[in-house]
Order: sequence, then structure tokens, then C-alpha cells
Amino acid sequence: VFELAFTPDRDHPEPLYRQLGAYLRALIEADRLPAGAKLPATRELAASLGLSRTTVSLVYDELIGAGLLTAHVGQGTFVAARAAKAATVRLTAVQPATSRGFVWSGLLAQRARALALPSRLLPVTSTPPRFDFRGGQVDCTTLPTGELRRAFTDAITSHLAELASDRDPRGWAPLRRAIARYLVARGIACDAGEVAVVNGAQQAIDLVARVLLDPGDTVVLEQPGYFGATLAFTAAQAHLVGVRVDEDGLRIDDLARVLRARRAKLVYATPASQSPTGAVLSAERRHALLALADEHQVPIFEDDYDSELRYEGAPIAALKTLDRAGQVIYAGTFSKVLLPGLRVGYVVAARPLLEKMVLARWNADVGTSMIPQAALATLLETGGLERHLRRMRKVYAARLAAMLATLDETMPEGTVWTRPRGGHGVWLTLPPGVDPAALAHDAGAAAIAYTRGDAFYADGRGTEHVHLSFAALTPDAIREGISLFAALVRERAARRRRRSRR
Amino acid sequence: VFELAFTPDRDHPEPLYRQLGAYLRALIEADRLPAGAKLPATRELAASLGLSRTTVSLVYDELIGAGLLTAHVGQGTFVAARAAKAATVRLTAVQPATSRGFVWSGLLAQRARALALPSRLLPVTSTPPRFDFRGGQVDCTTLPTGELRRAFTDAITSHLAELASDRDPRGWAPLRRAIARYLVARGIACDAGEVAVVNGAQQAIDLVARVLLDPGDTVVLEQPGYFGATLAFTAAQAHLVGVRVDEDGLRIDDLARVLRARRAKLVYATPASQSPTGAVLSAERRHALLALADEHQVPIFEDDYDSELRYEGAPIAALKTLDRAGQVIYAGTFSKVLLPGLRVGYVVAARPLLEKMVLARWNADVGTSMIPQAALATLLETGGLERHLRRMRKVYAARLAAMLATLDETMPEGTVWTRPRGGHGVWLTLPPGVDPAALAHDAGAAAIAYTRGDAFYADGRGTEHVHLSFAALTPDAIREGISLFAALVRERAARRRRRSRR
Repeated sequence: VFELAFTPDRDHPEPLYRQLGAYLRALIEADRLPAGAKLPATRELAASLGLSRTTVSLVYDELIGAGLLTAHVGQGTFVAARAAKAATVRLTAVQPATSRGFVWSGLLAQRARALALPSRLLPVTSTPPRFDFRGGQVDCTTLPTGELRRAFTDAITSHLAELASDRDPRGWAPLRRAIARYLVARGIACDAGEVAVVNGAQQAIDLVARVLLDPGDTVVLEQPGYFGATLAFTAAQAHLVGVRVDEDGLRIDDLARVLRARRAKLVYATPASQSPTGAVLSAERRHALLALADEHQVPIFEDDYDSELRYEGAPIAALKTLDRAGQVIYAGTFSKVLLPGLRVGYVVAARPLLEKMVLARWNADVGTSMIPQAALATLLETGGLERHLRRMRKVYAARLAAMLATLDETMPEGTVWTRPRGGHGVWLTLPPGVDPAALAHDAGAAAIAYTRGDAFYADGRGTEHVHLSFAALTPDAIREGISLFAALVRERAARRRRRSRR
Repeated sequence: VFELAFTPDRDHPEPLYRQLGAYLRALIEADRLPAGAKLPATRELAASLGLSRTTVSLVYDELIGAGLLTAHVGQGTFVAARAAKAATVRLTAVQPATSRGFVWSGLLAQRARALALPSRLLPVTSTPPRFDFRGGQVDCTTLPTGELRRAFTDAITSHLAELASDRDPRGWAPLRRAIARYLVARGIACDAGEVAVVNGAQQAIDLVARVLLDPGDTVVLEQPGYFGATLAFTAAQAHLVGVRVDEDGLRIDDLARVLRARRAKLVYATPASQSPTGAVLSAERRHALLALADEHQVPIFEDDYDSELRYEGAPIAALKTLDRAGQVIYAGTFSKVLLPGLRVGYVVAARPLLEKMVLARWNADVGTSMIPQAALATLLETGGLERHLRRMRKVYAARLAAMLATLDETMPEGTVWTRPRGGHGVWLTLPPGVDPAALAHDAGAAAIAYTRGDAFYADGRGTEHVHLSFAALTPDAIREGISLFAALVRERAARRRRRSRR
């Protein structure tokens, strides 16, 4: 007697008869239902699974048609004969795991309590918004499909054997060499031995947390600041201390006070394009930051996530270029400039630290997927990435211009926003008195999506801010969407004025 | 004045003149050297970089030829004119980071001290071995290049827009559905909502450690056992307690004693094919394991890393199929059956736990690379993976047979080894008195590589064992390599006998 389990999944897009059919087919093809085995009668199986008899008959008929089952009138339905001993099959319905008995809540680690995800990162439910101003999106029409296809094909055709046998946890050597060369344009002098390939800048942050931070250790970061860093350092049970930012980036006076007050293990910063304000850290502050870090012997994590996207003025050299002592950990990613979801980035650090990060990395997930690594090496070496970047700088410059012009034309008095010369978006401060929750509700009803400012604060502050990314929409859609959003802001601001007049 | 850094990398395969040329070219193309800027004289630059003057002249001449530089007799060499202000360029040689001043050792976290990597996992140095019996390798001639190329091309051509906009941290929904269907053949009833895509089984282990283990928590695991689990749980600062294994797998009597003696947070096991012995956990022990886990309310991590590779007898149902309470965390990977370095695996767990793992996963690296996810979904849906598996089962069965037959014929008395009916390798115990370190030295000299037994123990035991993988070599190479290895073992055993006779 074989006892097998099938759970009808009523939330699944596939109809139940196809689920059951796929289940039985897979069992037969995997030889888990031996030839000659007798299946339950349709009535019996339908009852035990809570399905209609028609559904079960449909499944049996299809499998008979496919030659996997045979029906003998008056005897029943059998797994089609190959040479094997007969057996009786019993199918039982199993409750899905959600309703099972094991109690997990008491087992979770202390350190798992800090795990959280800003709501904006959760999977999008039903309908996609009409105007998507959230970050991390791209306009799919701008993707370099042909270049990517050629690079991936070349990786499989020309390099599969090497890729299959590579076991260097730092990443594929040709890609590390190509990255070292790519970084020359950022002014960074490093050799391939100081580069490790990681799954995007987020993994670099996590690995630094793994090797530098014990619970309670202090990390200093910008506030507002990149939520991925806040999440990873919080999960590492670090003590997070925020430093304010202004139009010249991270405030050095704040940082100096913090570093005098407590021993910090790490300073996390986004000098080229402060996340989310887009401010560029001034030259004076760069030197001051390095001097402070040297004085207090604190490493700096430079998250250089999108400095390639610069539309005006000279490119900004990385902070790392000024790093004489080797205390800057430099991380970048190809997700922002090429494809979200590619999950290939890099980290450049002094060897003693990088070696530890690579050990932690092996434990975490062994290494970055090899075929994307090889495809990226090709895109870097053939200039395909540079070509795409040149194109995207023009595309994004036009979108930024459209967003700024429309904000100028349509936003009510009292609204303030940044005027970045690079990056993906604008950081906006709502007029005093506008209720952020009510506005978010209005925007949702109008199919406008954006990132709420509090996502960039560790402590729930920042609701008066909004981050608007222009990456995923055409200039026309940006003009339409921003005008619509401005009308909602005006309406909420007017409502507030009427109320205060009463 | 621009001050730029270039480090000649004398270990790099590229000659120095090409390194310098690439550096200058990248700077000019990235507009970091403005048009009209004057370069240092060849003599001056050669001296400051420690290169010959000929090398520098060669670089300048090439860049002049490429139209990027211009030479004016008697005046010097300049960045080729576009409209821009002139500047003087100063190039300085920078010391590589290894010799820089920052002291990292005092900054490393307590928890980073436990990080280590068995030497077998370190990058292979100079020449690859002639007979490679180490695990995690494949014979490159068996890779399904055509299937992979079609699947990746299809992912980019047909799904790039969806892949670029997907933001579900559990993984791409079509792949999760395909995995749920694939697992039916392992007897596992789950829906796509209970499946998360991860970067191989190793990441599943790491994520479970992140959400279940605080420092000092007890994890019970097989000894010998999979080194990746030992490394990840050690890095999580868990207290590791070993349980012996025999020809029926994990010893339940040991486990019962351990669980009575101390509160454990997790039991890690490889029921289908014990790593490294290949033992199949008996049906009786499976029921006993689940009963014990239920009694003590301990979750079980089932690492089902290669159960698809079964060459004789019925396929083995997963332990998860018997899991009524939902306390088994089930993980698998496509690395072993398809391509090492693909880094796509999956974990099936009850929703309360899986939700926490997915949060930890976002912090760790956001998600698995999307293009490989889509390619795998195609390989699963079109049957490409199943076809490859059917072929590889035959290929590996022949290799296993060749290895066992050659061991029978050539190994000296006193040598013992397992006779698995699946998996990738054989676990061998050397005859008493053979010095493992001396044998490893002999093997290295004969270009034979294998995994030393102590890699599978957390405490340095196991040196009398050797793990021999047959995956990467043809039957002929296996016969030749094993015969050669057996001769080395015989020689060492004889030497020992001679010595003891004296």
C-alpha cells in the first residue's frame, strides 16, 4: 500500500484538475507509482480530496489519453503496465502547513525579532500602479535586451566549462579584473585581488556587519539614509546612531560629536549621491570625514550605488580615491545601472578585511551565480555596459528635467524639494500641515505609488517627506503623474487651511 | 592640478604597458582627464611609477595612435582637444592596500573569529590535478550547454520586463510554482506560497541559523557531516553537538540521548544520502526521528541536496512527506543535478518560519538573480531538467560502478568503503596505520586530489577517512586514478608493516 499526499490549493491560479493531474503525472514519471498499481475509484478519491467526481474523472481520462493510466471495465484504473509488481494506491488529502500544529513563535532567535521589511518592499498585490514613482524600478522599454542576450549566450557557449569548475569564493577572476579596470574611471586604484564579487551592494553591507559587528556595537549612519543599510545593521543587533544630512551631504559636525561621545565600529555613508536626498558630499567634508575616521580609527563603508548616473557637471570621484590608509570599504552594484534583479555587485577593501568577508560569504551562500558573472564580464570588456550607461544618462536626464519642471509648475507653496544632478529621484518635503497618511490614501486611490519618507528613518520620523523616483516613467507620464500628485497635495493643503480658518 | 593614482600590478597576467594604457584610456573616456591637459614627460612618469621609459613611450604612442592624446614637439603630450579648460596632470604611484596603515585585526567582531574555510574550498592554485576526486566538481563534457543556452535566451527574450520589475523576496512566482510541482515527485505536497527560492541549500542553512539561533543555542548534527552546515552553524556561534552515523544513517539512540540531555534549537540531517557516507536513513529511523522531534518540539532541517541522483532501487521519499506537524524545514538545490555555480536552490517551510527567513533574506542580499531563476523555471516546465537528470543518472551509475569495481580490485586489505546506490562519491576508511598526511602528500605529487575526512568533522577527527567523488571523471580515468591511489595506499601500508616488524 502506497500512501501519498495531495493538497488541493484553491488559491493557486491553476485549476484543481490540472493540479491533481500534474501531481499524478509526476508520481508516475518518477516511478513512485509503480506500473500495475490500482488507483482509487473516482467517487472515492473525489470524496477524500473534497473535489467533484467530474474533476477526478477528467484527470483520469487525460492520463489515460497520455498513456500513463489504463482503464479496465469493471476492474478500475491502473498505472499503465511496464514490468513491476502491483500495489494499491491510497490518496489522502493533507492540510496545508498553515494549519499544522508546530509552534514556531517560541523558537525564534532573539536576533530574529529585529527583522522587518518596510511595507514598500513587500510584493505588489493585485494591480500595478499607473504612476510608479517608487525606487528600484526601471522602465522596461529601456533595457538592453540584445546586449544582455548576447552576453549570456556568450557566457554559456564560450565559458561554461570554466564557470562549472570555478571555486574561487571571491568571484570569477575575469570579472574581478574587469571590475578593477571599470573602477579606474571612478579614480580607484585597486587590483583584482582587492575586489570580491557579491550579490549587490546589499550583500556587501551584510558581510561587513558579519565580520565587524557584535551585538551592541555602534554604527553611525546618515538619517535620512538608505533603508537597506538600516535593516541589515538592525538585524545585526547593532546600536544605530544617526547623523543629519544637508545640501552638502552628511554633517561632519554631527559626526565629530558622535565619534567623540562613543566608540563606533563603522560609519556608513553615500558620498556620491546621498540616499535619499541626492546631496553630494562636498570636497571639504570628504577630507574632514577621512581625517575624523583616521583620528578615531573607524572604517568607512562607502556605498557608491549609483554614482555612474550623473547628468551634469564633472563625474564625482569616489571617497575611496582619497583613502591613503585603506580604511574605506567601497561597494557598488550593477543593479541600478543595468537591471534590478541582476544581483551582481562588488566590494573593494583592504585584504585583511576582505579575506574575512569572503569566508563569511562562503558560509552565507558559497558564491554569486556564475553565468551572470561571466555575462557581466563580457558587457564590461566589450563596452556594452558603457554604451548602455551613455544612453541611460540621456534618458534619465530628460526624466529628471521633466520631474523638476513639473514640480516647479504644479506644487503648492510651502512644498520643498531637492534638485539633484544625478541619481534616480527627488526628495520632497510636503507643505506644513498636510496629513501624510491621508495623502498616501488619496495617492493610492489615484493609482500613484511613491516611497514614504519614513522608510528612510530608523525611528519612524520623516513622514513629512516623500521620495519620487523618475526612473520607471517616460517624461510624459512623469508630467501627468506629478501634476496629479500636486493636485492631491494642493487639495490636502487647502483642506488644512479651511479647517484652521474655522 | 589633477592627482591620479595608478598601481602597477606585477602579478597581473596583463603586461604593465597594457595596464597603464587601459588606465589612461579609461580616464580620458570617462572625462576625468580633460581635453588639453598636459601629461607628464615619459621620463618623469617612468621614474615615479618605477617603469621603464620605453614602456611609458609605448603607452603614449598607442594612445596618440588612437586619437586620445596629441604630441606637440618641444611642448609635450596632451589629452586630445575637445572644448575644455587645460589642466596639469600629475600621476603618482600608490602602494597596494596590503601595505597600508589601517589596523583591522582589533576591529573584527567576536563572531568573526569562528570564520574558517576548509582548505579544500580555497581556490585551486597553479595546475589542476589530473585525477580530481574532490566533491562539487562536474565533468564539463556532460553539461547540457544547448538546453541552458535556450533557457537563458528564452528568459531574456520573453521575460526580461517581468524579471526587471519583480520584487517578491520569496523568488519568482513561476519558478516557485514549478518547484512546488517538481517536489511532488519527492512526495512533498506544498503550494508555491510555502516555497522560497534561495542561493543554493547553503543559503537555506544560513537563513535558518539567522532566524532560529542565538549565540550558544544548541544544534545537533551528523558527524561526520556536511562541512557547509558545520561552518554556517559555527559562524552563528551555535553550540554544535554531534551524533554518530552508521550504515542506516543518523543514529537515533545517540540523538535521543542528546535531546534528553539538553534543549536543542535544531536538528540538521541528510536523510536521503548522508553526507559524506551516502547512507540512507532507514524507514524505522525516519519515524523515530520525527517522533523524537515532536516530543522535544525541535525543528528538523532536511538537507535533500542530491536525492535526485539515485541509481538503483526505488526513489527515496523525503522525510518531509511524513511531516504532519510542519516541523521539517526542507531544502534542496539545482547545483548538484545541473551546474555547480548556478546558485539556485529552494526551501520549503511552514509559513511562520518561512516569512521570517524571507525577511532575513532581504537583508542578506535582496533576492536570487532573476535571469537564472527564469531559465530554471523553463528547464523545469519543458522537462529539460528531467531529461538531463535521466542522462546523468546513467552517466553517474557507470562511474560509481567503475569506482567500486576498481576499489574492489586494487585496495589493500584493511581498507573499508561504502557502497552507495546514489550520490556523487564513496566514503573510504584507510587501513590502520596509514599516515593520512603522508598519503595526502604522495597523492598531491601524483596529481590526485580528494577530500580529506577531517573536513567532515567539526573537531579535527576523521583523518583516517577519505571522500572520493566520481562525478568529474570518466570511468577510464576513475579506474586509472583509483588504481594509482590504491598503489599509494598499499605502499604506505607496507611501509608501516615493515616499520612495525623492525
